[in-house]
Amino acid sequence: MPSSPSAELPHIVVIGAGFGGLAFCQNFPAHLARITVIDRQNHHLFQPLLYQVATAGLSAVDIAQPIRALFGDRPNLSVIMAEVTALDLAGRRVVHARGELTYDYLIVAAGGRTSYFGHPEWEQFAPGLKTLDDALAIRRRILLSFERAETEPDPAKREAAMTIVLIGGGPTGVELAGTFAELTRTVLNRDFDHIDPSKARVILLEGSPRVLAAYPPDLSASAQRQLERLGVEVRTATRVESITEGRVVAGGQEIRADNIVWSAGVAAVSLARQLGAEEDRAGRVKVLPDLSVPGHPEVFAVGDLISLVDANGVTVPGVAQGAIQAGRHVARLLRRELRGERFAPSGREAFAYRDKGNMATIGRSSAVAEIGRLHFGGYPAWLAWLGVHLLFLIGFRNKLSVLLQWTYSYFTYRRGARVISGVEGPPAHSA
Amino acid sequence: MPSSPSAELPHIVVIGAGFGGLAFCQNFPAHLARITVIDRQNHHLFQPLLYQVATAGLSAVDIAQPIRALFGDRPNLSVIMAEVTALDLAGRRVVHARGELTYDYLIVAAGGRTSYFGHPEWEQFAPGLKTLDDALAIRRRILLSFERAETEPDPAKREAAMTIVLIGGGPTGVELAGTFAELTRTVLNRDFDHIDPSKARVILLEGSPRVLAAYPPDLSASAQRQLERLGVEVRTATRVESITEGRVVAGGQEIRADNIVWSAGVAAVSLARQLGAEEDRAGRVKVLPDLSVPGHPEVFAVGDLISLVDANGVTVPGVAQGAIQAGRHVARLLRRELRGERFAPSGREAFAYRDKGNMATIGRSSAVAEIGRLHFGGYPAWLAWLGVHLLFLIGFRNKLSVLLQWTYSYFTYRRGARVISGVEGPPAHSA
Repeated sequence: MPSSPSAELPHIVVIGAGFGGLAFCQNFPAHLARITVIDRQNHHLFQPLLYQVATAGLSAVDIAQPIRALFGDRPNLSVIMAEVTALDLAGRRVVHARGELTYDYLIVAAGGRTSYFGHPEWEQFAPGLKTLDDALAIRRRILLSFERAETEPDPAKREAAMTIVLIGGGPTGVELAGTFAELTRTVLNRDFDHIDPSKARVILLEGSPRVLAAYPPDLSASAQRQLERLGVEVRTATRVESITEGRVVAGGQEIRADNIVWSAGVAAVSLARQLGAEEDRAGRVKVLPDLSVPGHPEVFAVGDLISLVDANGVTVPGVAQGAIQAGRHVARLLRRELRGERFAPSGREAFAYRDKGNMATIGRSSAVAEIGRLHFGGYPAWLAWLGVHLLFLIGFRNKLSVLLQWTYSYFTYRRGARVISGVEGPPAHSA
Repeated sequence: MPSSPSAELPHIVVIGAGFGGLAFCQNFPAHLARITVIDRQNHHLFQPLLYQVATAGLSAVDIAQPIRALFGDRPNLSVIMAEVTALDLAGRRVVHARGELTYDYLIVAAGGRTSYFGHPEWEQFAPGLKTLDDALAIRRRILLSFERAETEPDPAKREAAMTIVLIGGGPTGVELAGTFAELTRTVLNRDFDHIDPSKARVILLEGSPRVLAAYPPDLSASAQRQLERLGVEVRTATRVESITEGRVVAGGQEIRADNIVWSAGVAAVSLARQLGAEEDRAGRVKVLPDLSVPGHPEVFAVGDLISLVDANGVTVPGVAQGAIQAGRHVARLLRRELRGERFAPSGREAFAYRDKGNMATIGRSSAVAEIGRLHFGGYPAWLAWLGVHLLFLIGFRNKLSVLLQWTYSYFTYRRGARVISGVEGPPAHSA
């Protein structure tokens, strides 16, 4: 295609099409600049529902939208699917796997990654949950281990195949534990003849004294009660000492489990280091109050890879809302600057995070929610959670499909997505 | 779980939960025997729509149903997910990856595999389409090659990345070619800035003089016209001479293409050989008129792995209807025998295939159909095809979800399923 007259416009490169990158693009006027979005995946992921894919409640496409489809009709915006390999801030260049880009403004919204707190060797035994492929791998592994249990004659091996350990009692760990407990007790339950999946053990390990440590204590207690009612063994103040193949040692005790999932730490992606700014312990970049990178007013960072105490003294949390609000803030700043209402960098408006509340679901009809001073649990919290997540789920088709699946699961207690694909082994040439 | 009193019942082992195996189980009374279904996958696949998954029109779970979910409530039926490794007909034993089973009756319904006509080395360059994983791999590969084309500066490489070659003009080849032409011209079309996907080449190679060689000649001609209208280059009477990485030589001409899909041959799975019966050239087992294996009245074979001219002199075709009708036939025979209306094997009723017609779809609103003496093409054929496939698609949820996706695609010309997952490369630790 011939290059358009818009080549004269300033060029903004956005790294990452997660909540932060997307919010920037959606809130920035199309005629003011050319935008190039670069991401290593071809889809935007609705990360808050990723645990539903891991637990076979939703299928992958329900929570993912092709990035190109999201921006198909928008002028002055291109998408590149490639991994960014290097940043050259001095030369205003982004180097990726298949070429390079120069920019006038750069938005780094590349997100977080799973952190193993200095134990990278644990990753192979306790995979994390960050991408669609992670979720599909966890699902495959757990469904296959119940298949193995069905024909396993050795009782100890059978028990290990039917044990799921979640490490980390934050929202992801709580949501996974609750949903796995439900999956085994109400869905898989009816599928097998030689094992009883409702006897499967789901163990949630948390190092600190309570689950959902970032929530108010009354909601932590409520979450733990709701989990235990579903059959989850919750062990708080229990630190993991070692993880090897099918084996976790925590609080001095050994647990044999074929399914170990890491839901504990988040750190910034390694790309963050190349911004050359000061970092916190998790590798998150200490940005200036306007979200720009020190020394580079033309470079901004948003989302899970920043560390910032905002204008109101609040630490911006690594949640979707934090990324979305930051993306919008940068869009507003650049819109003003490119319209000629220029400010000196020091005169730019500081970012202020607005806490809209927190919610975690625990299972069918169970959840905890905190909205302002309002704390609630159980069924009302679950309904609120359902509404909010459907409302924010990107894409009309997906909303309908997800609603359909949820309604169906709710009334029938069955799950449609528990199809195993990508089984390791030879191609399908023999039965 | 303790063994039930039903252990006294005769034991029927069914290898394969495709159309044939499923039809047997659904038509055999639950109280007459214990049934064990064994399959290497955990799902039944609605194979006629597999090309829709490969072309990003449907998602994997729309056309797959967990086998356990299909039989969850049925008594006297267990499911084992494992690969069958050996058959011992003399000892009435089935050996699988995690143990073995003995049987009183055996139904082998293990299906077909892709055949490369004596060129197994072509498989790595031109994958076939038999399983869900095959379909997902083809989709991933094609979507990724357009992503590569978008940033490829070399025009020859860019053209190769935008060329799709289908080898074999049977129903699968025709359906894939039509749908890929449509995908590039009406969907991907709007997604890219530097390439024009509507200029992508879709080439269908067929060795015989016409596509859909098993259909009446007027429908073959109609299909070719409809394909060409969509922009497919149809080359009949063109034999493939060699396939290497990104390169097909056919009819003396070389084609450079990053996407080569094999849609030509089907052969019986290798397990068929272990039945010890005479085989045809594709390795299909020559069964007796009652569908039993010569010398073993207690062993039956159904579906893609049999070769049979039926009671009316018709060759049973390797299509879903052939497998379904054969599965039902065996269910009827065994039901009678186990109820005590015993016949000598020679006195068993012979199988007679009832041709219910053939249909192949070519794209949005295009298809060809043959129902009895009625031949038709275009929109009416497409509507008929849509109705029949929705009717037969197993599972209420899937029907709704598929209908929703189709309606949505039809009116918006967009496709929801073009999410790439399972990209090779390092885990998501950097942007």
